[in-house]
Amino acid sequence: MINVGIIGASGYTGAELLRLLTNHSEVKISYVTANKYAGQKVSALYPNFYGICDLMFEKFDSDIAKKKAEVFFVALPHGTSMNVVPELLGENRKVIDLSGDFRFPKKDVYESWYKMPHKHPELLGSAVYGLCEINREKIKGSDFISNPGCFPTGSILAVAPLLKEEIISESDIIIDALTGVSGAGRSANKETHYCSCDENVNSYKVGGTHQHIPETEQEMSKISNKEVKLTFTPHLASFSRGIYSTIYCKLKKDISTEELLKTYNDFYKNHYFIKILPKGVYPEIKSVAGSNFCQIGLEVDERTGRVIVISAIDNLVKGASGQAIQNMNLMCGFDEKEGLKAVGLVP
Amino acid sequence: MINVGIIGASGYTGAELLRLLTNHSEVKISYVTANKYAGQKVSALYPNFYGICDLMFEKFDSDIAKKKAEVFFVALPHGTSMNVVPELLGENRKVIDLSGDFRFPKKDVYESWYKMPHKHPELLGSAVYGLCEINREKIKGSDFISNPGCFPTGSILAVAPLLKEEIISESDIIIDALTGVSGAGRSANKETHYCSCDENVNSYKVGGTHQHIPETEQEMSKISNKEVKLTFTPHLASFSRGIYSTIYCKLKKDISTEELLKTYNDFYKNHYFIKILPKGVYPEIKSVAGSNFCQIGLEVDERTGRVIVISAIDNLVKGASGQAIQNMNLMCGFDEKEGLKAVGLVP
Amino acid sequence: MINVGIIGASGYTGAELLRLLTNHSEVKISYVTANKYAGQKVSALYPNFYGICDLMFEKFDSDIAKKKAEVFFVALPHGTSMNVVPELLGENRKVIDLSGDFRFPKKDVYESWYKMPHKHPELLGSAVYGLCEINREKIKGSDFISNPGCFPTGSILAVAPLLKEEIISESDIIIDALTGVSGAGRSANKETHYCSCDENVNSYKVGGTHQHIPETEQEMSKISNKEVKLTFTPHLASFSRGIYSTIYCKLKKDISTEELLKTYNDFYKNHYFIKILPKGVYPEIKSVAGSNFCQIGLEVDERTGRVIVISAIDNLVKGASGQAIQNMNLMCGFDEKEGLKAVGLVP
Amino acid sequence: MINVGIIGASGYTGAELLRLLTNHSEVKISYVTANKYAGQKVSALYPNFYGICDLMFEKFDSDIAKKKAEVFFVALPHGTSMNVVPELLGENRKVIDLSGDFRFPKKDVYESWYKMPHKHPELLGSAVYGLCEINREKIKGSDFISNPGCFPTGSILAVAPLLKEEIISESDIIIDALTGVSGAGRSANKETHYCSCDENVNSYKVGGTHQHIPETEQEMSKISNKEVKLTFTPHLASFSRGIYSTIYCKLKKDISTEELLKTYNDFYKNHYFIKILPKGVYPEIKSVAGSNFCQIGLEVDERTGRVIVISAIDNLVKGASGQAIQNMNLMCGFDEKEGLKAVGLVP
Repeated sequence: MINVGIIGASGYTGAELLRLLTNHSEVKISYVTANKYAGQKVSALYPNFYGICDLMFEKFDSDIAKKKAEVFFVALPHGTSMNVVPELLGENRKVIDLSGDFRFPKKDVYESWYKMPHKHPELLGSAVYGLCEINREKIKGSDFISNPGCFPTGSILAVAPLLKEEIISESDIIIDALTGVSGAGRSANKETHYCSCDENVNSYKVGGTHQHIPETEQEMSKISNKEVKLTFTPHLASFSRGIYSTIYCKLKKDISTEELLKTYNDFYKNHYFIKILPKGVYPEIKSVAGSNFCQIGLEVDERTGRVIVISAIDNLVKGASGQAIQNMNLMCGFDEKEGLKAVGLVP
Repeated sequence: MINVGIIGASGYTGAELLRLLTNHSEVKISYVTANKYAGQKVSALYPNFYGICDLMFEKFDSDIAKKKAEVFFVALPHGTSMNVVPELLGENRKVIDLSGDFRFPKKDVYESWYKMPHKHPELLGSAVYGLCEINREKIKGSDFISNPGCFPTGSILAVAPLLKEEIISESDIIIDALTGVSGAGRSANKETHYCSCDENVNSYKVGGTHQHIPETEQEMSKISNKEVKLTFTPHLASFSRGIYSTIYCKLKKDISTEELLKTYNDFYKNHYFIKILPKGVYPEIKSVAGSNFCQIGLEVDERTGRVIVISAIDNLVKGASGQAIQNMNLMCGFDEKEGLKAVGLVP
Repeated sequence: MINVGIIGASGYTGAELLRLLTNHSEVKISYVTANKYAGQKVSALYPNFYGICDLMFEKFDSDIAKKKAEVFFVALPHGTSMNVVPELLGENRKVIDLSGDFRFPKKDVYESWYKMPHKHPELLGSAVYGLCEINREKIKGSDFISNPGCFPTGSILAVAPLLKEEIISESDIIIDALTGVSGAGRSANKETHYCSCDENVNSYKVGGTHQHIPETEQEMSKISNKEVKLTFTPHLASFSRGIYSTIYCKLKKDISTEELLKTYNDFYKNHYFIKILPKGVYPEIKSVAGSNFCQIGLEVDERTGRVIVISAIDNLVKGASGQAIQNMNLMCGFDEKEGLKAVGLVP
Repeated sequence: MINVGIIGASGYTGAELLRLLTNHSEVKISYVTANKYAGQKVSALYPNFYGICDLMFEKFDSDIAKKKAEVFFVALPHGTSMNVVPELLGENRKVIDLSGDFRFPKKDVYESWYKMPHKHPELLGSAVYGLCEINREKIKGSDFISNPGCFPTGSILAVAPLLKEEIISESDIIIDALTGVSGAGRSANKETHYCSCDENVNSYKVGGTHQHIPETEQEMSKISNKEVKLTFTPHLASFSRGIYSTIYCKLKKDISTEELLKTYNDFYKNHYFIKILPKGVYPEIKSVAGSNFCQIGLEVDERTGRVIVISAIDNLVKGASGQAIQNMNLMCGFDEKEGLKAVGLVP
């Protein structure tokens, strides 16, 4: 049993860490912080925890934190996380940061996309990018993980085999992705009001301005060893959980759907959480809701020489907190699946 | 490890048994039947199982069944279940029947409410009614459990302390209950079409004709030692999972909300899955979705001398498959919580 | 053509007035106010109006208001409305107030349920309660209407024939009602966040504390000529529009469902917007969504001597803005149906 | 007043014609057919019509049809419509066919995409393609309209200005489109079950096999005078009404978002139902739900030289029945907007 702390536990990814770690056999949640709600019980914010979790939110204090826990999940917004992470690193502590603050080795990339100065540029490049299926070995040896964004997780997993095998044009990738409303966070505003989202779809950051673009391009470029450039459009859709990505790629050569599926099955054969669907079957969000799985399906469009790859993940699990736990499992030598075995909630 | 069989595994309660038992540490699912889908993989019907469960539906055969498994969950519709259960009982097998076929000791009650003849009246009365929090000890010693209906589970748990303590009038109970669409089953018809249910609520079997009425009255009467009579209205609402029951009871004496909450906390203090909410907090369906918990909240209306009790369960878990597993855990001497520890899926 | 003003047009009922009046053949919307959004176009808040309505929100000014319009809809929150209405009354202006501020003749009733002092008690009792089907003649002669609350509209219409004909006990009425999220208003908070409402139901003001109780009791008492006392529980459910009321009444005499339906059809025969459903058919919210209709269905429960009456309205139309327009139509001598003929949006 | 008939009135587009035509000032619905439901009232299938529409479904008979009505809407499935339309044409009758049966001048195109023989090839090419904003003048003089498909309507309207002005590459167009569940029709099956669609997104006919592709390419090619080739992926999403299309086009030249918006505003300046949104604002399905409007927004992605165009329509209104009525209005010399003025149902 190790003690873990969740810094920024009042948001949706924090609450999801609590939900998943409550049934993780190797850890004890010993410290949860939320400055705004300090002194309140977790169940006052998340009524699913009544009678199950009696933890109280505390105000963050790095000394207390390090006394109470050995592994930290930092579930703070970007810009805030960068102030906290440096205080937790070192002294054999392990840190998994769920924000975007440590995903780029280059300060200027961060600053131009996130529109704010980075206060700890000395730490940039020191975190391993925690996309478990791509970087598993590096993660095992690391004490500092930058957990991937939700959109990048869904997209990179979906096209990694195509890029690795040089099957598609690196400069002609289009990602059209739907996110559930939990992706917009717990803050209440006009955009997250039920009556704004219900029976609706809308779009935001259209035209190449979403901060997940450089992250996706950076990691895809590493896989392909060429510079990847992509068009990305996020939409907010009327469901609570999920990222549904439809990706359009230009094929460099004639290849069939069947051959591509074989390539995918080979690529992911040792990765339990990635499920390649048979020909003619495509992912559904509901199939992965509440689970750490990523479903991938694809089809070649022979008329236009493209392959359409579709992936589905739960944004709060594989797209955030579940993957963070998967990272912890790898870092700590636990079974990679521990705490993450739930099957998607169907119906 | 014991081997379990699921008879009638293609319906929603069957699929939910599969989903939950997949991660139960004490059992192996060794036999799943669905006559209509024999030869097809579970994942062909339920895509959340791709790559997780490779089981194939078989045609039911009682000899094969008994060779392959020691514990059976019968998740067939009422009227069908009564033909199958007798073939499985005996020879040290344990049977948990999720249908309504064995919930009544009296043949005429069954026949008048279910509108069909009972073919095995000799078995009536031999099953223990598997409402774990009420009949735990009897369940432990039994090999044949009749698993409660979803509506009765939500209602009986909600008012048991009031009836036991003789706080309310037994003949003046009104239950207004909402069910999610999964309660209508997997069959596709006009009523379950998305466009019929979405943004909608409708009502059915209004005026005291629902077959869960005699079951609820029978079990409530046992608890109160008096004849209970109730009005019950079920509504179909626009969510997939859940039973939300609002129950209006006439108080026999002056009593405060606080006193009643204390009564409830005492009554359920040894029952992990029942969560009594603090004053001013009421159950939410989402808090229990995907979980085996039952949340209960209540409030006295001093102006009218009534107490309003509200309960929320997931109809497929505590209202069906989860409770069936809880029954198995008790029957087999496993930890009562095994396989059922998931916290409600919020957000 | 008359000029109408909407005071407090940025909220949902204000926007609904705009939506409905845009196609009303007898009026021109000449003045819309929303202090917080003064200077912004209506379409900036409500994108369904892009290219359709070029009106701009103004800051409220009673002199300008009276110059610009002859009829006013006041769609402000209670407590605010009472300050504005007195400035608009008189000088042949007609005022329809959608708040609760002028629904009670007695100051103390208002103050004890709304928990605030009333600043214009001299006006209490001067407004006609604008439930068109009950008070049509009085409305025709009035210049000042207090538009009914959404819950009272659904409930009173549902039981008026029973009270009028003395069929039920006046002191034993239970109202269980579901409201769509638009009923909680446009303000964004934890309760109206999509992830709080989606796939969920929760309850509030349980135990007889909702401010619509005295309004409902008062108006029902007028109809029955006896003091009505009721238990009322509101629930927030996962749809945008609608009030769905299930009402449990104790019958004073033996009477059949068919006889009661005949009573209802007689009672409402001259009221186009009230639709009595045939035996065995019950209201659906979707059937009335976007429309000014109220559907009513009922069934006697012979076992318990109760009648269950169910009604469905769109909370923003018949429960607020549509009824307000119906009131204006009556006050101004227009066709009662003008602007309100839309059929419910199915599917 | 003219008499209109709806052939195939039991499906969703038929019911939507009924809903909209009920309040059309120039027509009387005099004949509605649905062979399967002959003898039943419209309200038996669509409860929103109780007390509003007393029409009864009849069995189709072309002689009776022609006696009873002058204008026909044929809302039958493709393959069925081709048998009925020829019997209605001629004798000064006007026919608007909502199926795909008469959208192609070439028999082989129809047969290869619709996978069935065409029984009336002699009629191919004789219908005007009823996309009102593109073919308004031709429609005015026609007695036979082939009403566009829902996906083509949303897509063609979205890119027509780009094609007309030769701003984009004709061979590099990608359409990613979401449809509401009503687009799958009224038939109940596994795909349209509430529990399959709720909180879900899935994809079908991926890889260039949807029958709306040749229709879209054909009409786009006419506008651009070049052969258009496109990739199209339809998804089924969790809302009842709407088509939300995100279209990725390769720019042939440097051009700004502002310049493109000006081009669009010019192109559509005389077309009331097309609403071009200002820069930074994108369409929402809810803004057009229940209305005949099409909202269009766009943004240039300078990094990748693409323009992303987004359009939203209600699939049952502008994508089917509303556009059919718009066609009738043009054919019969009515105000183009008559019966179609409803503003989108927000909230």
